[in-house]
Amino acid sequence: MDEGHRDPVEVATRVRYAETDQMGVAYYANHFVWFEVGRSEFCRQRGFAYRQLEEEFGLYLVVVEARCRYLAPARYDDEIVIRTWLGEMRKRSLSFRYEILKREDGRKLAEGETVHVVVDREGRARALPPIFVERLRCRGGA
Amino acid sequence: MDEGHRDPVEVATRVRYAETDQMGVAYYANHFVWFEVGRSEFCRQRGFAYRQLEEEFGLYLVVVEARCRYLAPARYDDEIVIRTWLGEMRKRSLSFRYEILKREDGRKLAEGETVHVVVDREGRARALPPIFVERLRCRGGA
Amino acid sequence: MDEGHRDPVEVATRVRYAETDQMGVAYYANHFVWFEVGRSEFCRQRGFAYRQLEEEFGLYLVVVEARCRYLAPARYDDEIVIRTWLGEMRKRSLSFRYEILKREDGRKLAEGETVHVVVDREGRARALPPIFVERLRCRGGA
Amino acid sequence: MDEGHRDPVEVATRVRYAETDQMGVAYYANHFVWFEVGRSEFCRQRGFAYRQLEEEFGLYLVVVEARCRYLAPARYDDEIVIRTWLGEMRKRSLSFRYEILKREDGRKLAEGETVHVVVDREGRARALPPIFVERLRCRGGA
Repeated sequence: MDEGHRDPVEVATRVRYAETDQMGVAYYANHFVWFEVGRSEFCRQRGFAYRQLEEEFGLYLVVVEARCRYLAPARYDDEIVIRTWLGEMRKRSLSFRYEILKREDGRKLAEGETVHVVVDREGRARALPPIFVERLRCRGGA
Repeated sequence: MDEGHRDPVEVATRVRYAETDQMGVAYYANHFVWFEVGRSEFCRQRGFAYRQLEEEFGLYLVVVEARCRYLAPARYDDEIVIRTWLGEMRKRSLSFRYEILKREDGRKLAEGETVHVVVDREGRARALPPIFVERLRCRGGA
Repeated sequence: MDEGHRDPVEVATRVRYAETDQMGVAYYANHFVWFEVGRSEFCRQRGFAYRQLEEEFGLYLVVVEARCRYLAPARYDDEIVIRTWLGEMRKRSLSFRYEILKREDGRKLAEGETVHVVVDREGRARALPPIFVERLRCRGGA
Repeated sequence: MDEGHRDPVEVATRVRYAETDQMGVAYYANHFVWFEVGRSEFCRQRGFAYRQLEEEFGLYLVVVEARCRYLAPARYDDEIVIRTWLGEMRKRSLSFRYEILKREDGRKLAEGETVHVVVDREGRARALPPIFVERLRCRGGA
């Protein structure tokens, strides 16, 4: 369990001017956007096409909980690395864990978690289709 | 024509911290979000329920052009007034015009325009249903 | 303690189109923006001018932790009420608690918390000036 | 003149889930954020460190006008290319032009322009320092 931790997925991006606030640092809600960028990349690299889950299966991963600890500010134009791995995976829910690092020196800027449930178009809880479970768990991807 | 101008709709909001950038003023893309807040309010006051257009008619107002002139900065916590009126209305397109004012002194901070076409779920151009045309044009609302 | 809870501050806003995502509901990071709208209003009503803290004292309330539990979706044009109260207040940190309610039926859509520390322009931890402590605690406001 | 056009700068990014709206496509204000991502990259590749302009010279590029024409929707997870070049450069103002392309097929999704003036911390119009003018104009960059 927690195998994902030993095999996290990383994706880099730069802090956008739009993401700063008048304190001169990235506004705190953006970290959750970055978490989602990491989650998308994690799914893509595992061969879990989130777009396919929505379009073909009519299923959605709904966030039921999100949290972030902020350790140091991210600034405009900083290159940041979003590191994502699978936390817990249960029948109807799963969690992702994240770290935001500053690429230049590897310093950890933030860490967090999101918990998701699978629902259909009517909002009813569903189990994640087995093929998606496999892909999330498997390091090899598709 | 341009009758809307003589009867604009106003809605007030405060500049959010999230909307500022490190220059200490509201980031320029937010003005387009405010325009949309004004547009929603304009439609609501005219009895044009945009949600209804989407949900019952399966029609969408797609933006094909947007522009803004920035005259003075909006700052955190400033109360701003978004003034919206109907620009041109043609068979398959319509435009809205906007002014952003600082409530405190009435100073104009920005002005702009958005041009929209009506499309269905498949993205095909459509005419706006007559009832919506009437509502947009009529000052009385629903 | 937790006196704020018995005297929360409420502010209403409408869910913006910009805040929805392709799932048709408000994107999860926006709740943190709404928390901040609630926090700003809380401070304003208590006579705690956050802008003054920044401009006159050169002090900033930096978020060190944020969390949200999502109970039900917020949708475009929904009128939501953001209810904010003071959580814990320590020498160098304080927390705010929030609930997002749907105005129409009072249903709770989300709840969360943010934890803040006070820092100066150089990022050093500082104590909140006594006058701000008093204002936050006092129900009467300024 | 318009030499920049013959040597545009490109940067790629993916459409984020956060950037979609309930119409299932990227919300129209985000294109202006992408323009800024292109502008930042243009400046970086020309050796024009915008951060340096702000921090060392106390000068800011303030947007006075922005416009976008939307040709086709950008969707979640689409890889888009932001192409940026210098438009006009005058003593106290300059403009950038942009195209947003879908990487997969090179289709143009949007095009636009932003006009900027240089101001100091007090908001007074200034001339851009010569070294920045040179860098913007020169293809070689720093």
